[in-house]
Parts: sequence; C-alpha cells; structure tokens
Amino acid sequence: MIVALAGGVGGAKLADGLACVLGRGLSVIVNTGDDFEHLGLHVSPDLDTVMYTLAGIANHETGWGVAEESWNFLAQITRLGGPGWFQLGDRDLATHVLRTMRLRRGESLTTITADLCGRLGIAAHVLPMSDQPIRTIVDTTEGPLPFQEYFVARRCEVPVRGFRFEGSAQAKVTGDVRDKLTDIDLRAIIICPSNPYVSVDPILCVPGLKELIRTRSLPVVAVSPIIGGAAVKGPAAKMMQELGFDVSSTSIAAHYRDLVHGLVIDVTDAALKPTIEAMGMKVCVVPTLMRSAEDRRALGAICIEFASALAEAERPAQ
Amino acid sequence: MIVALAGGVGGAKLADGLACVLGRGLSVIVNTGDDFEHLGLHVSPDLDTVMYTLAGIANHETGWGVAEESWNFLAQITRLGGPGWFQLGDRDLATHVLRTMRLRRGESLTTITADLCGRLGIAAHVLPMSDQPIRTIVDTTEGPLPFQEYFVARRCEVPVRGFRFEGSAQAKVTGDVRDKLTDIDLRAIIICPSNPYVSVDPILCVPGLKELIRTRSLPVVAVSPIIGGAAVKGPAAKMMQELGFDVSSTSIAAHYRDLVHGLVIDVTDAALKPTIEAMGMKVCVVPTLMRSAEDRRALGAICIEFASALAEAERPAQ
Repeated sequence: MIVALAGGVGGAKLADGLACVLGRGLSVIVNTGDDFEHLGLHVSPDLDTVMYTLAGIANHETGWGVAEESWNFLAQITRLGGPGWFQLGDRDLATHVLRTMRLRRGESLTTITADLCGRLGIAAHVLPMSDQPIRTIVDTTEGPLPFQEYFVARRCEVPVRGFRFEGSAQAKVTGDVRDKLTDIDLRAIIICPSNPYVSVDPILCVPGLKELIRTRSLPVVAVSPIIGGAAVKGPAAKMMQELGFDVSSTSIAAHYRDLVHGLVIDVTDAALKPTIEAMGMKVCVVPTLMRSAEDRRALGAICIEFASALAEAERPAQ
Repeated sequence: MIVALAGGVGGAKLADGLACVLGRGLSVIVNTGDDFEHLGLHVSPDLDTVMYTLAGIANHETGWGVAEESWNFLAQITRLGGPGWFQLGDRDLATHVLRTMRLRRGESLTTITADLCGRLGIAAHVLPMSDQPIRTIVDTTEGPLPFQEYFVARRCEVPVRGFRFEGSAQAKVTGDVRDKLTDIDLRAIIICPSNPYVSVDPILCVPGLKELIRTRSLPVVAVSPIIGGAAVKGPAAKMMQELGFDVSSTSIAAHYRDLVHGLVIDVTDAALKPTIEAMGMKVCVVPTLMRSAEDRRALGAICIEFASALAEAERPAQ
C-alpha cells in the first residue's frame, strides 16, 4: 500500500501511473486549497482532475475537465449576464451540482468523493486532504488574491511573495486520511510532481498530517516537477523565480528536505544529483516527463521501486 | 396595457401573441406553483416556458426547455448516480444555476426574472405571481403529491381529487404585480389557455390578487384551453374527468364565472355559445389552436379586440 499526495495535472498523471500498478493499494490525498464557490457551486479543481484522470475521462487537450465536453451551459450563462471567466463544461458541471447538493445536505467531501469515484469505476482511494475548508491565498505584489483569482482570472501574471492557507489552523485530518497513513500495510509515501507551494504545501499544512507521515519512519519519495529549469505545466517555475529561488530540482529538494528521503529527478538534470545528495537525500535519475499512459505507469513503478530500495537500505543487515 | 395570466406552454403561446401586438404594453403574471428544488437548484418551469417562448428560444419539439439543446449534463448526472427523472438540458441549466445563486443571495424572483428577460431581449414584463413560495399539491387517490412528482415522475397517471396551494396564505402580491394591476392605463386582463386548476388557480389564490382584478371593473377575458372535448396539451381534460366535470368549455366558463366577463372558445365548440352566454358571459368564437407564430399573433389580437368590445358595451351611451 502506498499513499500519494497530489495536486492538479502532473500529480494526477503520476497518481494514475501508481494506480495502474497498485489498484486498490493506492490512496491519493488531494489538495483542496484551490476549492472555491462559483455560481453558487462548490468547485474542487484538483479533486476533479485526479478523479477524471483516474477514471480515464480527463480532457487531455485542456489539461482540466472532462473529455468530449460541450460548452452550452457556459454560452448560455454568458448570454444571461453571468460570469464566464471560469470555464465549466456541461459534463463537468454534473460533478459540481451533485457535490454541492450533497455538501448542503451535510455530507462530507470525503464521502461524496468516494461515491463519485465509485460511480466512475476508480479502484484507488481518492481522499480530500480535509473536510474543513482550507483556502489558498496568494500574497502578491498587488496584495492577497484568492487562488482561483490569481490562477484563472489573473493568469498567474501578478508576481507572488508568498502563500497562506486560510482555515488550516481549524482544519483536521480526516478519518480516512488517518486510517491510510496509520495502516500497517503502508509501505511508502510518494509526493507527486505537483506545485510544491500551492498543491503540496496546503496538504502538508493540515494540522497533524506531517506528523502522521513522520512517525511512520517509512520512505517518503518526491518527484520533482521541475525539468531542465522549467515546470512541465503551471506556474511553479515562475513562482520559484519570484520567491528568489533557483528554478531547479535542487530548490525542490531544499523545499522538501525536512520530510523527504528520496527525490526523483529527470535525466536532463542528472548533473544536480551530487548537490542534492549532499543535502542528505537519495536521488533517482530517470525520465520523468509523462507523455503517454505507459510513461505514467513506468514512472509509477520506478517510484515504488525507489521507495522500496530506500526502505531496504534502512533495514539493519540480517 | 394588458395584463395576462399564464402557466406553461399554451399560456406562453398566447402571451407571445399578445407580446407581438403590445410589446412593453404587456405584463404576464406567471404561475410559480410548479416551482421546485431539484439537485439543489430552484427550477421555475412555467416562468422558464414563458421566458423562453417570449425570447424566441423555446424548444418546439419538447414543448419545454431551450431550442438546440444538448444533454451532456444529464447524461453525466445519471452516470454519477444522480436523479435523471427531471430532464435538465445544458443551456436550460444556466437559468437554474444563475437564478438559484441569486435567490440564495437574497434577491427576489421578480428582480431575477426581470434581469434574465432583459438579457434575453424580452420587451414584455414577465412577473412571478409571488416572491414567496407557493407549492401546488395534487390530492390524488394515492394521497397528496407535490406537483412535479405528479406531473413528471408519475406522468399524471394517478387520478386527482383536488388541489392545494401550500404557502398561499402567507404569500403576498408583489409590488410589480400590484403596480401593473393598478396602472391607470390598464385596459383588460386576459387569462391565457392554461390549465385552470394547476396553472391559473395558483395565481388567483395569491391573497389580494383576485380583489385587485375585481376592483378595476375592467374586462376580464379567458381563452378556453379545451377544444372539442380535449385539452391541446397537458392533463387538463383528464383532471376535469376525474373531478367529475364535463370536458368542455362550458366547464371552463363555470370555473371562471365569478371573475370572467368574456370567454374565447374554438370554432369546433360554437354550439356551446348559447349555454355559456346563459351563464352571463359573453362568448367569442374563433379558431384558438395556435400552430404558428401567426396563429398566436392573430389570437392575441382577437383577445384584445374582444376585451375592447366588452369595455365598449359596458360604457354608458354618450
């Protein structure tokens, strides 16, 4: 059994690769810091990306939403004077409407997500990082911006200074997350190649979650989202620059150094291996770009093997 | 200026005919007794039918919803285990989502409807009968059923015994409805060929509304929804039978006799004229079936002329 931490697209891809290898043996704890209310509907972008990707219905062209999507709702909303800046597809909308209705009835995000995943035929466990609202606020040169405003409405153009996770002090680890992290069959924790600041950090800030990981003394492996000085997708590289960090897997290693035992970096960055190992972290150098389903599965298998080797190395000789 | 009372399809068609003649001079008071909550969304079927018809975007094939509709939301809702019995099209959904969001913010149904109509380029005033919830309950041989359950889920198959309009005692006439009914330029009130029991009666049961009509001493004209012993659409004829009434315009006349001065009946039913006139009501015999836009406009013009003749007849000779 493996627990993965994931945000949006890159994270979802590796989660999918891990799911191909592990099936029900995989649990994915997903960032909900990007969740927001739009048109009166509760939208969970990262949960949806992970869910749609694992269900095999993700839209590969857009990188978000559902495949074979239509946009008649959005066209009509715009005609009726409603906000059109956040693109809600007709199929995608079913998730938001159903989830919102059930949340209003008092059901937890965890329960609703489990049901939706069941309906979509997903074997892996997809777990929201918390059932309490945590909202990522991006501190920018123009002041604080809610994540979706920064990300979608402002297209990440405003320089960032830092991040806050509103509500995290009051949030709790869910029963399901606790169960998975304390399961005796758990073998490793894998941090997917998601944005460390706005996808993984919100998960790690849920009170008690980091401690649950640390007390297990299990290998924690991260996959760097930076390849050759750039992010595969999203604003991670731009953020690193604006925060004054070197845009490289070395900065990723530094960011995770208090938690992670092994870092998976791309072959392009093989030269960084000694620097990162000098920080006390094992390094696995492999192709990390996931273009195909086979790439995902291969990287998933490599992460599991790497974690297993780390555990082996820690074990006292017979 | 004319005020029309309307329910669904038939009412919407005549309202459209009247709007072609009167433009901004028409106000349509619309039944909201069929309103209900579905998937956490506030749905107003009759308001939507009137609005879509006046905007020229109604779906003529289904008789409800928007033209050139797609159904991907519904397909996905069903896949996710949600209820599929009420057919929500992708374009149609925009109305429900936007309206629900604004109602939750505390805006009135009247304000929201006016805005939506403005966006859709409708000149006539479309007015919900009340801003308070009134819900039509159908008393059946199997007990009371909420209207949509009777109408959509049970397909009107259960025999009816009567009707109740829950919440009507607490409901109020809206400021807009009052303004239109007390306007000095108002010339007539026209009851559209809608179901008298579940479309028009809910409007007339809003406390004070009937009195506002009566105190004006203006001609009140109704168009019979029954042609040749059958309803053009919907369960009106079946209901009349189950309630023990003759399925004819005579029963319609009897139903409206305390309010209506003139009844428009179809040429098929010309023979009923003496019987209805004996009840103290003027009768106008014309083709009332509205197949085309021209039919609607023609019937609208006839209703206005008929009302005008009734007013003329009442006026003392010079």
